[in-house]
Amino acid sequence: MVATPERLKYEVKDLNLAPQGKQRIEWAGREMPVLKQIRDRFAQEKPFEGIRLVACSHVTTETANLAIALKAGGADALLIASNPLSTQDDVAASLVSDYGIPVFAMKGEDNATYHKHVQIALDHRPNIIIDDGCDVVATLVQQRKHQLEDIIGTTEETTTGIVRLKAMLRDGALTFPAVNVNDADTKHFFDNRYGTGQSTLDGIIRATNILLAGKTIVVAGYGWCGKGTAMRARGMGANVIVTEINPVAAIEAVMDGFQVMPMDAAAAKGDIFITVTGNKHVIRGEHFDAMKDGALVANSGHFDIEIDLEALKHRSSNVKTVRNFTEEYTLKSGKSVVVLGEGRLINLTAAEGHPSAVMDMSFANQALGAEYLVKNKGKLTPDVYPIPTELDQEIARLKLQAMGFTIDALTADQIEYTNSWMTGT
Amino acid sequence: MVATPERLKYEVKDLNLAPQGKQRIEWAGREMPVLKQIRDRFAQEKPFEGIRLVACSHVTTETANLAIALKAGGADALLIASNPLSTQDDVAASLVSDYGIPVFAMKGEDNATYHKHVQIALDHRPNIIIDDGCDVVATLVQQRKHQLEDIIGTTEETTTGIVRLKAMLRDGALTFPAVNVNDADTKHFFDNRYGTGQSTLDGIIRATNILLAGKTIVVAGYGWCGKGTAMRARGMGANVIVTEINPVAAIEAVMDGFQVMPMDAAAAKGDIFITVTGNKHVIRGEHFDAMKDGALVANSGHFDIEIDLEALKHRSSNVKTVRNFTEEYTLKSGKSVVVLGEGRLINLTAAEGHPSAVMDMSFANQALGAEYLVKNKGKLTPDVYPIPTELDQEIARLKLQAMGFTIDALTADQIEYTNSWMTGT
Amino acid sequence: MVATPERLKYEVKDLNLAPQGKQRIEWAGREMPVLKQIRDRFAQEKPFEGIRLVACSHVTTETANLAIALKAGGADALLIASNPLSTQDDVAASLVSDYGIPVFAMKGEDNATYHKHVQIALDHRPNIIIDDGCDVVATLVQQRKHQLEDIIGTTEETTTGIVRLKAMLRDGALTFPAVNVNDADTKHFFDNRYGTGQSTLDGIIRATNILLAGKTIVVAGYGWCGKGTAMRARGMGANVIVTEINPVAAIEAVMDGFQVMPMDAAAAKGDIFITVTGNKHVIRGEHFDAMKDGALVANSGHFDIEIDLEALKHRSSNVKTVRNFTEEYTLKSGKSVVVLGEGRLINLTAAEGHPSAVMDMSFANQALGAEYLVKNKGKLTPDVYPIPTELDQEIARLKLQAMGFTIDALTADQIEYTNSWMTGT
Amino acid sequence: MVATPERLKYEVKDLNLAPQGKQRIEWAGREMPVLKQIRDRFAQEKPFEGIRLVACSHVTTETANLAIALKAGGADALLIASNPLSTQDDVAASLVSDYGIPVFAMKGEDNATYHKHVQIALDHRPNIIIDDGCDVVATLVQQRKHQLEDIIGTTEETTTGIVRLKAMLRDGALTFPAVNVNDADTKHFFDNRYGTGQSTLDGIIRATNILLAGKTIVVAGYGWCGKGTAMRARGMGANVIVTEINPVAAIEAVMDGFQVMPMDAAAAKGDIFITVTGNKHVIRGEHFDAMKDGALVANSGHFDIEIDLEALKHRSSNVKTVRNFTEEYTLKSGKSVVVLGEGRLINLTAAEGHPSAVMDMSFANQALGAEYLVKNKGKLTPDVYPIPTELDQEIARLKLQAMGFTIDALTADQIEYTNSWMTGT
Repeated sequence: MVATPERLKYEVKDLNLAPQGKQRIEWAGREMPVLKQIRDRFAQEKPFEGIRLVACSHVTTETANLAIALKAGGADALLIASNPLSTQDDVAASLVSDYGIPVFAMKGEDNATYHKHVQIALDHRPNIIIDDGCDVVATLVQQRKHQLEDIIGTTEETTTGIVRLKAMLRDGALTFPAVNVNDADTKHFFDNRYGTGQSTLDGIIRATNILLAGKTIVVAGYGWCGKGTAMRARGMGANVIVTEINPVAAIEAVMDGFQVMPMDAAAAKGDIFITVTGNKHVIRGEHFDAMKDGALVANSGHFDIEIDLEALKHRSSNVKTVRNFTEEYTLKSGKSVVVLGEGRLINLTAAEGHPSAVMDMSFANQALGAEYLVKNKGKLTPDVYPIPTELDQEIARLKLQAMGFTIDALTADQIEYTNSWMTGT
Repeated sequence: MVATPERLKYEVKDLNLAPQGKQRIEWAGREMPVLKQIRDRFAQEKPFEGIRLVACSHVTTETANLAIALKAGGADALLIASNPLSTQDDVAASLVSDYGIPVFAMKGEDNATYHKHVQIALDHRPNIIIDDGCDVVATLVQQRKHQLEDIIGTTEETTTGIVRLKAMLRDGALTFPAVNVNDADTKHFFDNRYGTGQSTLDGIIRATNILLAGKTIVVAGYGWCGKGTAMRARGMGANVIVTEINPVAAIEAVMDGFQVMPMDAAAAKGDIFITVTGNKHVIRGEHFDAMKDGALVANSGHFDIEIDLEALKHRSSNVKTVRNFTEEYTLKSGKSVVVLGEGRLINLTAAEGHPSAVMDMSFANQALGAEYLVKNKGKLTPDVYPIPTELDQEIARLKLQAMGFTIDALTADQIEYTNSWMTGT
Repeated sequence: MVATPERLKYEVKDLNLAPQGKQRIEWAGREMPVLKQIRDRFAQEKPFEGIRLVACSHVTTETANLAIALKAGGADALLIASNPLSTQDDVAASLVSDYGIPVFAMKGEDNATYHKHVQIALDHRPNIIIDDGCDVVATLVQQRKHQLEDIIGTTEETTTGIVRLKAMLRDGALTFPAVNVNDADTKHFFDNRYGTGQSTLDGIIRATNILLAGKTIVVAGYGWCGKGTAMRARGMGANVIVTEINPVAAIEAVMDGFQVMPMDAAAAKGDIFITVTGNKHVIRGEHFDAMKDGALVANSGHFDIEIDLEALKHRSSNVKTVRNFTEEYTLKSGKSVVVLGEGRLINLTAAEGHPSAVMDMSFANQALGAEYLVKNKGKLTPDVYPIPTELDQEIARLKLQAMGFTIDALTADQIEYTNSWMTGT
Repeated sequence: MVATPERLKYEVKDLNLAPQGKQRIEWAGREMPVLKQIRDRFAQEKPFEGIRLVACSHVTTETANLAIALKAGGADALLIASNPLSTQDDVAASLVSDYGIPVFAMKGEDNATYHKHVQIALDHRPNIIIDDGCDVVATLVQQRKHQLEDIIGTTEETTTGIVRLKAMLRDGALTFPAVNVNDADTKHFFDNRYGTGQSTLDGIIRATNILLAGKTIVVAGYGWCGKGTAMRARGMGANVIVTEINPVAAIEAVMDGFQVMPMDAAAAKGDIFITVTGNKHVIRGEHFDAMKDGALVANSGHFDIEIDLEALKHRSSNVKTVRNFTEEYTLKSGKSVVVLGEGRLINLTAAEGHPSAVMDMSFANQALGAEYLVKNKGKLTPDVYPIPTELDQEIARLKLQAMGFTIDALTADQIEYTNSWMTGT
């Protein structure tokens, strides 16, 4: 423990949970070989020496491995939870006890506590913010203008956060560079598609233990997360319906063999509904009215706003918890709608979030993105930057190597051909 | 027919084939509702009035529908074949006879004739070139510098062509704008992925009538075409191996559940090999040496250079045609390797190329891309431009509508949410 | 040629087609290693010495390999076509010219000719009938009672034929043993499921060249053929609806993730309809009335009775051929319905029937089934017998070996465990 | 509670868990509409009036619903656990407290306790035994010959149990009829295939939280359970290898697109191994030696004998628990092998067993099978009987109805066609 008298140095549920947390952090580390290699390099090169860094993220075993890598790189790092329900208290305890990293996160903390933690994070006067949903950055920009000069930049890994950063940029509120980790290919492939796909269904199964085969599952949104969820739902034997607002995404869903229709039509057909749109009130009052008795509703988008729970409560006469994370609303009409995980990210509330192998890639992007910002301090104008392609390729290369795969290399002949445009038919 | 005395106005196999060609062009038109809507608008607005246009493309029923739309838009259009083996002679005949469009294309024409046709096309002094593989543009740039001033721009729809255009741009040889139709989402989804996927297997089946289930199929390349081919090969029950040179594409193939290995290792395992890389000599001498007796080899990349047939001939003692488009090479070692379609695009040589529904999208992009160039004449610096997002979305919208699908629209509330960055957890 | 003066020794289209037929028969033989091994053994053991044998089958390259194996085994074999549209005239020619086997089959022969050929086959006074749809046996039983004493038995490989044989058995009309090749596992897996699945889609694509991805395909029947067709249709990117009359098959389709509904509801949703039920008039007048404009209708069941073409003709004002094997009916209501292959087996009319690798297994079952009947002459009471399990396993073993696969064998320890019932938890 | 002085009336962990158990039993009941309909009929008809019945099964929420249905039917029923690790203590408590059913089952009970419970069950002097793995019947036959006269029959739902019953039959030890619930179609489709498929992966994910996409998963056995597991593993993005000893099953796996090889070869390739063979020591010492460092090994076959843990212990220097149900063995060679759930049924140890919807079908078969034995008391000779087809169809019909599906019925015309054999081509 590293507490000092002048301020509260951590806030976790129970330091006694540390031993279990440590074991779980190490187990996760086994599936994170890319981050491990980066940590080893950071320990040598100390790229974050003298840098104050705030990470706002789901406090899980994988985030722990990121935080450890950042600290190994010399960062004065502080960690807060990006979501009140996803904190693993044993991990938070171990980070404080075993690794000397200040953590402010408790599973089930209320909104007031969450916002207090955001303020504590900003009190740390960060140079780098590793954000997840853009709450720390948005608070900084709105409430701590005097700290803007401290900031080197931010990295952001959610679609939601990127949408907010771009809106800030449009409004002239973004005064520093942001690295868009979310759009890295090695993030998409693992995190949004494969991670969300598996862990969303995992969360639903753990919450309910229902059989997915033979069920009609409505997936709202066909972005990377929606694609992953729809693909895995089909892989488990479900009949999948996709809803969309973007015609290009919708036609892709059609071509992938899914049924596509508006939510108004899908509402009456689904056994299970999953929202992954990044937008609000995708499932609304009129949709609850149209659902089958006993329909299940879950969200796997970043914020708990995709399902309009107020509208549901308004038309319900009773709510009871029927299993952990599973609440049955009895509508005044007599039928019931079952809400999972209170409409929060189901993979984090009812399961364990993304598997470590997934976060290995996302957090490698976060770590290298943060290092890139520090290395290019002063050179980048305020903007939302993609991850440089070389970093993306490097991460893929490290991962393939760790998984034991080799691939082809271009021959000299092929390189020459690629660079030439005179050869034809 | 529109022949005039001063020069050869068309070169097709046999005008008597026109009636069958017309019937087939109309059948294809049924599956091309997007292009139909564009043609109707063109007929009203005449965006190509006074424009000389050369289209170099596979001369198929679908290209015919594009050519008809361009002519309806007022273009003085001339069509040549982009590939000696893919011409449908009845279609070429009908375009000349029934639609008054000069066509220079005969199935099986030799290289000399092909290059003569490119010259004839350039003699047309085009303002707009709709290209497929960049041969017309490359010839123009190298041999007809004096015609460069005529050019408004070019549209290009193959990966190969885009690679060549970018190399030209790097070398300062590209003096006019090029629209990259190949990277339109509505092109990818339909053409590279779904079109190539289905039609490549269709070509292999028509050439051989073999059962794909239970076979090990090696797909070289995991770009959009490779993804489509691998996905469909699995969908037909094959066990699929992917080879790649790009680590990001390779890790995506791994995550999609395919075996990934270098061609050196795959060569001994495959029953069927399909190249879709855009590069040369992806299957080389050492790979033929390692193959099983009776292995089948096909190409679905743009040029017939992906399989090193010279190396194969060099180590063979005999070649015989065992079915149409199917040649068995007997190696000196005693075993045989079977080459399909002489290593040319198998979906065009042994089957009918992309289905019309696919080309509907690609050619809608070509048509709107060409219109965009004309509308923005003089405003675009020499560069390779993506298709504007609005055109992409418009095409998707037209297609969904034609297929009878409706999708959601954002509510006012959701639009407001999307534009705001202050709301958070 | 083996013609003798006293009777017509063959009836084929054109003996000059023989060279191409021979080449194609040999190509097919490469994919039929199991039948090849059986033929080699037959040539040694001559199990059919002195046996008159009639085979009624689709006259394709694969059937040719079966006929050659039977003749190698000493049979006095005669071959007729089981379907007027499926005969490959070059194969028929080669069997007569190159292999000395009398064949009575011409592509497109009319019904009268077909029935004449059945009579000619019965004139051969067969001891063994290898049937496909039970027409030869049914004719024998009804019209040639005096020949019943010649008969050792029959083998039958279609669901339709088995249904008819069981009905005969029920009525007391079956006076000899029948071997049900159709229910062999090695038949199911290859022929009904994988063969019909691939070749049905192949037939539809060759007839129409349409893109299957994004289409809604209605598969009527979820037996082995229907399962294969539905699986492959999904594998090509279609959205698949299944109709059934059997609740067990229907629930399996549901659990496999397909939409299940009655044809009345499916009729309005499908872009393509495929019948594989073995029953008649599965698509009827009321269904045509409900279909979308331009819907495609194909049959892959044995007889051309699954689609009620009379009802369609009755409500149509016009029919025209729009491509080979593709007829567009214009309904009086104004919309059109497109019928493929005249409602006959689409994989045989528009494509080349089952791939050779498939028929290798089915015909190995036919050959061993016929041998089994001869070996057990006089020992089997009139009944429909399954293929003995040992033959089924032997065929699978030969196939795995030919494909280069090895599998595990039970250890002594495991054999002991399997035979014991006393060991428990 | 129904304890009486003369003997121990139940043995459960803690009756205070009953309220949670009751809630969970009711939640499961929602997904078991078929059993619900059967229970309602049983409550009216009382088919088990006067019958002493022992059920040996995994003591889960679903088994609870079966036990309640049997008791509703008048049975004097007693329940014991078929597996020491699968008991849900809250469910056991609720059955005793809330439903008055004697239960002898505690999660983690040792072997001695398990065998004591089998003896207590036999002390109940059952007329009907509903068995799961055949332990109660095997013990009865070996140790309680004097009770054989009490027995009306047994129902058995595992492959393992059926193998043992058939061995008993062969040895003349089976003196009463057994109904093979395991081979009911409605059992296969739901339980072995869809249930085992989903719940096996669920167990592995809960135990490890690893990402399945991109992993190589070796499935030993391609029976119904293996098919389901392989299908779902592919559906989650894994690359699947199948091992088999039966050539027919092996060729089916090949045709389904899986890699097939002996375990000797697969051992070095797998990241995760799953045994579902019903046989012993499928993974042995030599296989552990060949595995990658960190390979995961799990069993989903009935008994914990498929993985030779003795051989693994023998070559290990250390074992530690790294997560619940996850033990890491460090081999003397330095690498590690991770064993899940101690090699017991992973879906029951680490997850919650089959989803309720699955067990609805299996237990409907058990309930109707038991009723069938009682109704036919005295009429059935000692043998292993399949579930009558009518019961199978009835269960499918009830399920479709409960899920809201309708299907086609044969028309009069079609029925006549089906019964006729004279109509042909």
